[in-house]
Amino acid sequence: MFKIPKHQVAGHQAIDGNLGPLIDDSGRFYKPLQDDERGTTELAFYQSFSSMLPHHIRGFFPVFYGTQLVEASDGSGLRPHLVLQDITSNHLNPSILDVKIGSRTWYPEASEDYIQKVLEGDRLTTTVTLGFRISGLQIYESKESGYWKPARKEVKSFSADDVRLILRKFVSSNLEPEPDCCFASTIYGGCSGILEQLLELKAWFEDQTVYHFHSCSLLLLFDKESVLNGRTVPFVEVKLIDFAHTVEAKGVIDHNFLGGLCSFIKFVSEVLTDSKVSTIEASFN
Amino acid sequence: MFKIPKHQVAGHQAIDGNLGPLIDDSGRFYKPLQDDERGTTELAFYQSFSSMLPHHIRGFFPVFYGTQLVEASDGSGLRPHLVLQDITSNHLNPSILDVKIGSRTWYPEASEDYIQKVLEGDRLTTTVTLGFRISGLQIYESKESGYWKPARKEVKSFSADDVRLILRKFVSSNLEPEPDCCFASTIYGGCSGILEQLLELKAWFEDQTVYHFHSCSLLLLFDKESVLNGRTVPFVEVKLIDFAHTVEAKGVIDHNFLGGLCSFIKFVSEVLTDSKVSTIEASFN
Repeated sequence: MFKIPKHQVAGHQAIDGNLGPLIDDSGRFYKPLQDDERGTTELAFYQSFSSMLPHHIRGFFPVFYGTQLVEASDGSGLRPHLVLQDITSNHLNPSILDVKIGSRTWYPEASEDYIQKVLEGDRLTTTVTLGFRISGLQIYESKESGYWKPARKEVKSFSADDVRLILRKFVSSNLEPEPDCCFASTIYGGCSGILEQLLELKAWFEDQTVYHFHSCSLLLLFDKESVLNGRTVPFVEVKLIDFAHTVEAKGVIDHNFLGGLCSFIKFVSEVLTDSKVSTIEASFN
Repeated sequence: MFKIPKHQVAGHQAIDGNLGPLIDDSGRFYKPLQDDERGTTELAFYQSFSSMLPHHIRGFFPVFYGTQLVEASDGSGLRPHLVLQDITSNHLNPSILDVKIGSRTWYPEASEDYIQKVLEGDRLTTTVTLGFRISGLQIYESKESGYWKPARKEVKSFSADDVRLILRKFVSSNLEPEPDCCFASTIYGGCSGILEQLLELKAWFEDQTVYHFHSCSLLLLFDKESVLNGRTVPFVEVKLIDFAHTVEAKGVIDHNFLGGLCSFIKFVSEVLTDSKVSTIEASFN
């Protein structure tokens, strides 16, 4: 009844006898509760967020159904799991981008060792320079080719230019030799597209002093075939995930998340603008 | 003819035979050009900024008049100085706040030793937690009491609550026992007040990919007496200063500065909102 998620692009995975999340057929996602502070923090977040957040922001988070004892994927027996909405369950062939937001993924209260370790990761990826990094992705190509899903090692070494290319590929029908960005206006643009959703999130982050989301990811998800078939609801999803390091804001906005989000918004809007320019140029040729 | 500036609140000071900036009687500020990379970087910034920035943003920077060989304040002889506008020269009794913006004052290309040293300073101040820190200030009290100017050591140890209190004191006629915030609506609010100017700067930072301003300060300056006398032009100034670590943006917005600026804007707007609430409450009593 429990299965290994087919569409996980980052994080611990329940393969080869490791501990990782599971899904079922009813659209639920079971995430093992870590047995240290990270588990306590993430559970506390999910238990509090729906009463703490304004209505129009709650949709950016997976639905939380409580906790449940589930046979762990590593064979270690029953273990408490967070029961969450499986965001991918409504999508046949989801293209997914996992973007860890913030130019700092460590939090001030952490131990010295933790800070130095995480800081090193931040400096080796685009986290420090861009204010975000891509943590994982899969892009649906076609029935024949399936998904393009670069290996973790490759993802970790992405440069700023790689990020720009990925953001173009993500909304293209062809990935090689030059992505056509043919879905850019529908997926990034439009009144319910990714950019509009990110701007809504940004407006909230300019004001909210409830949480600081360290090391949290934006998950962007859409289904190329539903775009091609003209289905509109809900073909683009923007969700926040991973709250093992989400702490109280103590009256201060999450300037680290906000700065990174604004940087990511700029990257996305550049793809949108460039694709409009290309369309206009093409219509003149 | 050259004098030690009376209203300097942070940075190297030309006292006790040290090297520091000088002013003259014509409203110019002479900043010694550091003879390492910092000097080169700051000079390159001043030489380029006016052609690189949109017109409405240039006013946020001191006017640059070139460089000049000037007798250094430490007696070491002639030395090249940046010749800049002395921002305080139009003000009789300026209240000044120097706010270093950004949750990170180190830049990715710096040496390991520099990063670790600066990071430590960032963690010991409010830089990491608030996304900015107060680097210095003076608040004019009255002809009798003069200025309140806390010592550097005290400024360095400011907590988030100290910052909130300073932002209230800055726009108050009385500092003790409880600041009255009587200038808040004029200085922070209003169509040419600090908040409006900061929001204009923010809109630019959401888009600009020209410079990354590491370890740069916002200087906020106003003159209580001109407010009391109803003079309006130009009684509130918002300037950016210190560009020894300003580097090319390489197509990425300055998310570090932007995040810190948004955090600072939130602090300022809270003082403004609270002062409005107090005024309404007072009018009911």
